[in-house]
Amino acid sequence: MNTNNLITLTTDFGLEDPYVGQMKGAILKRNNFARIIDLTHAIAPHDILQGAVTIRTSYRYFPDATIHLVIVDPEVGTQRSILAAQADKHFFIAPDNGLLTLLDMDNKIEVIHRVENQSLFPTEVSSTFHGRDIMAPVAAALAGGLPLEEVGPETLFADCVSLHIPEPAITRNTIQGHMLHCDRFGNIRTTITTKHLSAFQPSDFTGITIGDLRIDSISSTYAESPPGEPVAIIDSSGYLEIAINRGNAALELACQPGEEIVVHYDHADQ
Amino acid sequence: MNTNNLITLTTDFGLEDPYVGQMKGAILKRNNFARIIDLTHAIAPHDILQGAVTIRTSYRYFPDATIHLVIVDPEVGTQRSILAAQADKHFFIAPDNGLLTLLDMDNKIEVIHRVENQSLFPTEVSSTFHGRDIMAPVAAALAGGLPLEEVGPETLFADCVSLHIPEPAITRNTIQGHMLHCDRFGNIRTTITTKHLSAFQPSDFTGITIGDLRIDSISSTYAESPPGEPVAIIDSSGYLEIAINRGNAALELACQPGEEIVVHYDHADQ
Amino acid sequence: MNTNNLITLTTDFGLEDPYVGQMKGAILKRNNFARIIDLTHAIAPHDILQGAVTIRTSYRYFPDATIHLVIVDPEVGTQRSILAAQADKHFFIAPDNGLLTLLDMDNKIEVIHRVENQSLFPTEVSSTFHGRDIMAPVAAALAGGLPLEEVGPETLFADCVSLHIPEPAITRNTIQGHMLHCDRFGNIRTTITTKHLSAFQPSDFTGITIGDLRIDSISSTYAESPPGEPVAIIDSSGYLEIAINRGNAALELACQPGEEIVVHYDHADQ
Repeated sequence: MNTNNLITLTTDFGLEDPYVGQMKGAILKRNNFARIIDLTHAIAPHDILQGAVTIRTSYRYFPDATIHLVIVDPEVGTQRSILAAQADKHFFIAPDNGLLTLLDMDNKIEVIHRVENQSLFPTEVSSTFHGRDIMAPVAAALAGGLPLEEVGPETLFADCVSLHIPEPAITRNTIQGHMLHCDRFGNIRTTITTKHLSAFQPSDFTGITIGDLRIDSISSTYAESPPGEPVAIIDSSGYLEIAINRGNAALELACQPGEEIVVHYDHADQ
Repeated sequence: MNTNNLITLTTDFGLEDPYVGQMKGAILKRNNFARIIDLTHAIAPHDILQGAVTIRTSYRYFPDATIHLVIVDPEVGTQRSILAAQADKHFFIAPDNGLLTLLDMDNKIEVIHRVENQSLFPTEVSSTFHGRDIMAPVAAALAGGLPLEEVGPETLFADCVSLHIPEPAITRNTIQGHMLHCDRFGNIRTTITTKHLSAFQPSDFTGITIGDLRIDSISSTYAESPPGEPVAIIDSSGYLEIAINRGNAALELACQPGEEIVVHYDHADQ
Repeated sequence: MNTNNLITLTTDFGLEDPYVGQMKGAILKRNNFARIIDLTHAIAPHDILQGAVTIRTSYRYFPDATIHLVIVDPEVGTQRSILAAQADKHFFIAPDNGLLTLLDMDNKIEVIHRVENQSLFPTEVSSTFHGRDIMAPVAAALAGGLPLEEVGPETLFADCVSLHIPEPAITRNTIQGHMLHCDRFGNIRTTITTKHLSAFQPSDFTGITIGDLRIDSISSTYAESPPGEPVAIIDSSGYLEIAINRGNAALELACQPGEEIVVHYDHADQ
């Protein structure tokens, strides 16, 4: 039973159009007490990986029992399913296209259902906007206390679409990762996390290379470097990040997603 | 009597400046229980037609009795009136410049008043921001239960400013419409709606042309075309739309608002 | 005692990333009844002056006792303090880097404390996102009724970081100010306010110059000039503004922040 009534939205809809607003209307029409929080609507169009990373790194800051609507849905209107999952005491609704893959990799998914109970949908469902016409009313119903099993039959994530997640390669002396994306400040998020770094002794660390650039240490704050100088840091979600103090690293280093970033170690004692 | 307390905002203010936030403050200062939903603030500056289309296609997704503030107001501070209308069981507040024209064309307007009751305004009203200084407190008062007739004298929409709406031309064998605007995905919304298409037998349909491009069918989903291929579709608001599956049609077809789009029919039985 | 539960957010986080959403989650996790309003998240990255101007011109539109979170924080993670102030019956939380300078210059600050009570923070505090990990929970606690003195020791603004605010130079016949920034409409906000203009007799006013352009009067509305013509106006926050009726002044006049704007007077009676 859910008495939280909190729903977050993560989409690639942008804010230029009234799509997000219409979806909020559809939620409130079904559940007038729902409280709706935008996580972000700036996922790059059709970028399922960015949606998956965003929800993985963000859901835990919300109260338990929050409903998270995650919508990046290039196959809207086809036979692809819609999933409703309970994971780590939160709820997630998303098209079955890999958006929940990282929750599964983290072993967080507790139970997962396919949304098929048409009594939850309005009489008129468009073929191009299931976010508004199907996922919003289902989220509203869950937020209002509908038990998860009422949305449709249980399934296993093994039977759902899984996303290929680029994992860093770990060799004897390196972690070879890539740029995942950059944020508004131009800070470069890599595929390398604290989990990968913990495979080595911190004392064996010798530096990070990205293109021609070498960074000699991992800092605790941006301001440890002089303004304009690059800095490597663990970001607030546990990813290794390359930044420039008071600058825009992605721009100044001319980095694009996919660019290689390597962490180097030296086993001096061997 | 309104116990809904829901207010939506549709403006050309953008989110770069604190204007929208100030307007929300002005609403809450007058009505601490109001709940405010952004429909969009990305109407192109001074684009009254886009504002009119946005509110027409969006209001119905909200619960009855919702108050919709619609503000695109290049003549702010002049003698232009402010209107408050009841239409299709919803409420609308907008400058008298044509923003409500489409609601009138749809025969939705039930009653309309001019906002003149100065006891609803704060003591200090700027001449450049009536959204914050007049329309926000009036919306807050309506949301709190003020009867519509208290805002000022009743009028008729016939006495209000009406917008010229570009209508498609229908000939014996064609519907000649235009590009209205494009959304974040580059999907091209045309001036042609299901209403115009229903003037022909679907079986007589032979294709759609836009510049040199010909599209042979109207699809149900974007994914019916291969990725990168153009597709014609009825959008979730009933407009004929030209899209590219997983692509950006406006960009790839180099289309601007006003570009001609023609639907072709062949009366084979005659 | 605060029973308002209203929190506004002013940041340079943008809406491209989930940072703002995570911060809202952190507020709601601590105080499930908080109501959160975005003032703006489009402060230019690291632009403390723009943050200071934004909060000064905006807070007063909200109900008394509103909590205003103001976060532009390039030194996050260093030894810089976090401040919590009561000013003009509102509350403000901000890094100690000058963001509250204009409230101090306006003599609005009633009492100010340093945020040091670690029992208000979560157990895990990142070094790169104090907005989410420290300021959000403190705002949530204040909104829920925590007395201000519980956040940490009282201080004086004289002991806090103050920002250099560019003030117009007033000569016998001129006010020499500068462009501060422009808004979404391209309207140019200057450093000149009604306070500076009141140092002269309005009847002595002879014109405004900006580059080669001369404007002969201060108008009440944008529409007093023909479309496409420049107009000087007092904006809705009391700043002298240069606009182009239905146009984009910053773009068409090729103006950048810092550009000189001069108001001219002639003491004809002397």
